[in-house]
Amino acid sequence: MARGGKKNDSETVTAAVLVIGDEILSGRTKDRNIGYIAEYLTNIGIRLSEVRVVADEEDRIVEAVNALRSKYSYLFTTGGIGPTHDDITADAIAKAFDRPIDIDERAVAIMRTRYEPGRLTETRLRMARIPQGAEIVKNSVSSAPGFMLENVVVMAGVPRIMQVMLDDVAPRLKTGRRMLSRTVRVERPEGDVAPGLKRIQQDYLDVQMGSYPYFEKNRLGTNLVLRCTDAALLEKAHAGLWRMLEEEGFAPHATDIAPEAPDGEMT
Amino acid sequence: MARGGKKNDSETVTAAVLVIGDEILSGRTKDRNIGYIAEYLTNIGIRLSEVRVVADEEDRIVEAVNALRSKYSYLFTTGGIGPTHDDITADAIAKAFDRPIDIDERAVAIMRTRYEPGRLTETRLRMARIPQGAEIVKNSVSSAPGFMLENVVVMAGVPRIMQVMLDDVAPRLKTGRRMLSRTVRVERPEGDVAPGLKRIQQDYLDVQMGSYPYFEKNRLGTNLVLRCTDAALLEKAHAGLWRMLEEEGFAPHATDIAPEAPDGEMT
Repeated sequence: MARGGKKNDSETVTAAVLVIGDEILSGRTKDRNIGYIAEYLTNIGIRLSEVRVVADEEDRIVEAVNALRSKYSYLFTTGGIGPTHDDITADAIAKAFDRPIDIDERAVAIMRTRYEPGRLTETRLRMARIPQGAEIVKNSVSSAPGFMLENVVVMAGVPRIMQVMLDDVAPRLKTGRRMLSRTVRVERPEGDVAPGLKRIQQDYLDVQMGSYPYFEKNRLGTNLVLRCTDAALLEKAHAGLWRMLEEEGFAPHATDIAPEAPDGEMT
Repeated sequence: MARGGKKNDSETVTAAVLVIGDEILSGRTKDRNIGYIAEYLTNIGIRLSEVRVVADEEDRIVEAVNALRSKYSYLFTTGGIGPTHDDITADAIAKAFDRPIDIDERAVAIMRTRYEPGRLTETRLRMARIPQGAEIVKNSVSSAPGFMLENVVVMAGVPRIMQVMLDDVAPRLKTGRRMLSRTVRVERPEGDVAPGLKRIQQDYLDVQMGSYPYFEKNRLGTNLVLRCTDAALLEKAHAGLWRMLEEEGFAPHATDIAPEAPDGEMT
């Protein structure tokens, strides 16, 4: 959790991620795309604001796509653009936008560079189905492309392929001011740190201050994270936090890399 | 992706997960709760149907809680029940239900067993705030409890604590028929397998058939997953799939453990 820093400005570019996949909901596959996209967008100055995971049912996908694309600057989807009968994302996107969808000659041309003519079967050509008016998003791993329709970026679910698609589309996205952050680690439970943190938060209302407990070697500790787009203000707040922690005798550690705690962390 | 098996029956118990946390959306912390809860619920006969991740803003939490609790049998939330100023989940849940919230004597009694009187500060007592009418969910790791209000289960975000809370609440949940699954691995890209898989799916409409590509040692392969609550039907469909794969010369491998592919997998 983090609060503060709610000041919104016209420079803020927001995004949502929609993970499409029964395999995530059944627990069989552990998602690794959400965290990757979250970090990537933060680094380029796009604020990830919501994530949803839905089953591969057309109604669910259409509903989520329409809810999220109207609410945020961008929507990124992962999953469901392969060649099998259960890959229904492209058609669902076309339905959400009420656009026709058919085999796209640009996609076919790209896929011809990878597949021998005999292997570019009707089944594989399902992967060239792209809604009318969409731009191609390149896939340097296995050729079959993703696409971008208005503010919706449709990517594969295989992490390696999703990652190259994100690299391809990133230069086309508008971005805002980068969110900067500083992390301070304290080997004390949150309850000890809370009163001082609250005071510092009141002094710096434009800096988001988050407190994230972790559980390590059978003890609770806390990572305190300050986030702000203004570097000078961030440093001032960080200095204030550090001074408070020292005064209270909490021995702060500087860390800007989250430790890989054996039991993880999360508030 | 998986399709088929859409037959719904009165025995189906559904759930959603709501992850509350800026730290997940910023990418600083990688969520490990979604996958854990998904697998746990599948194993006890509850169908996870949707996941959302929202920022720790009261309006967002209230909106998501009300959307999800009315749509599914259960809603499980993680995160935001600590002692710091940024932990606002309990109050947001009370608001979503329009219930009063205050320090709960049952929670205080539990926390007294862990904290010396002097250390059970006003700050820590924030963790004893529970909406009126909620049941306690025990936390054997660090005492401060979660709670269950009607069909909403509110848990901590630290994975180790969330896990013991899930163990505590599980016996109180109604469950449906367990979803059973069989996985077959083929060292061939999805495009090769798709036509045969489509035929088998048409023969067994009540079995969900999913195709999940993976990328390993620079080659694409496919895990085929069959899911069904009827064990006999599942075995029949599995035998049919296996026979098809052998006839096509695809050398199926039996596997019911998803391999840890270096590049992961996901459709």
